[in-house]
Amino acid sequence: MNVNKIPDIIIGRLPIYLRALQRMAEKGMHTTSSHELGERVGISAAQIRKDISQFGEFGKQGMGYHISFLSDKLREIMKIDRIWDVAIVGAGDMGHALAHYQGFVNRGFRITMVFDNDRTKVGQKIGEFVIQDITTMTEEIQRAGVRVAMLTVPAPAAREVANMLVKAGVKAILNYAPISLSVPENVRVQHIDPATHLQRMTYYL
Amino acid sequence: MNVNKIPDIIIGRLPIYLRALQRMAEKGMHTTSSHELGERVGISAAQIRKDISQFGEFGKQGMGYHISFLSDKLREIMKIDRIWDVAIVGAGDMGHALAHYQGFVNRGFRITMVFDNDRTKVGQKIGEFVIQDITTMTEEIQRAGVRVAMLTVPAPAAREVANMLVKAGVKAILNYAPISLSVPENVRVQHIDPATHLQRMTYYL
Repeated sequence: MNVNKIPDIIIGRLPIYLRALQRMAEKGMHTTSSHELGERVGISAAQIRKDISQFGEFGKQGMGYHISFLSDKLREIMKIDRIWDVAIVGAGDMGHALAHYQGFVNRGFRITMVFDNDRTKVGQKIGEFVIQDITTMTEEIQRAGVRVAMLTVPAPAAREVANMLVKAGVKAILNYAPISLSVPENVRVQHIDPATHLQRMTYYL
Repeated sequence: MNVNKIPDIIIGRLPIYLRALQRMAEKGMHTTSSHELGERVGISAAQIRKDISQFGEFGKQGMGYHISFLSDKLREIMKIDRIWDVAIVGAGDMGHALAHYQGFVNRGFRITMVFDNDRTKVGQKIGEFVIQDITTMTEEIQRAGVRVAMLTVPAPAAREVANMLVKAGVKAILNYAPISLSVPENVRVQHIDPATHLQRMTYYL
């Protein structure tokens, strides 16, 4: 099968599988089954087997999956067997929260730069990062070859700043603004939105 | 079909459909098709029709879906045709960002209380909310009948605070800490994690 044709919906499930596998590994587990994995992530065993088999034969019939082997394969497929530099744009509350977030370690990402347009913030530090002037962003991102950005500017500015990021060569944008972005086809956008996550739970209340 | 048996994975896609429908409505569109919706959300038309048909006949063969009708039905199914009060626990950067987030409007939620254990923060305001002492949380949540919480405390404190929320009667927790929570079966947890969202995009880079 041509890997370019794998549906987005399957790619979107791989990080969920990997996170569950990592938690199993932390608990000292070495092997798992599609049933066990399925129970943890709320996806059917058949779906999991089908998803994973798109990329090769990573388990044995009746033997299940080796957790570390499957984790490595998933990291390779998702290209997080390397470290991606990430720019934060917007040094407000959310930018601060992300700059201090402990959850990027060993997940394939490291924050390397933070930008804001507020002159009173530029030059100040968030943790180890000096907040840089957004007018230098295009140049800095191009120079460093950064391809991934987290956009935490206020909604009215989000579209303009997203366009700047695209022009600078960014190909993956995690958008925190409650607004949709229009980007070229070769740029990916993920919208991260607490309301959507909350809506997944109210059905059960 | 017994609605209690609808897989979590389908419930998890409903908010994504609703968001896309709301954006279409904002653009002045009145009807759509499973193909058009599918292209916007990266899910096949067949899957969308199958998902939606779990709950009834909301579209007509060859006629597609009425956007406002389908949106209303999805809101009803997800129980966001009402407003849920939400507590924020943890008045750090993320708590501040959420207290100011503009994306909850018309989505089924309103923040009503913010708690922290830091005595220097208690009594201060985030926007319109006075930060309350976490020692009063159980009582306040019970008194107000709050069932939904966003947990933004540091990882080492997250499990203890989640247990407090469960004891207070909270049934849905949006967890921002990069750590897994153990909760009773009748409590839902969603983990919101920028690394997982970023991992959905690197495959394409």
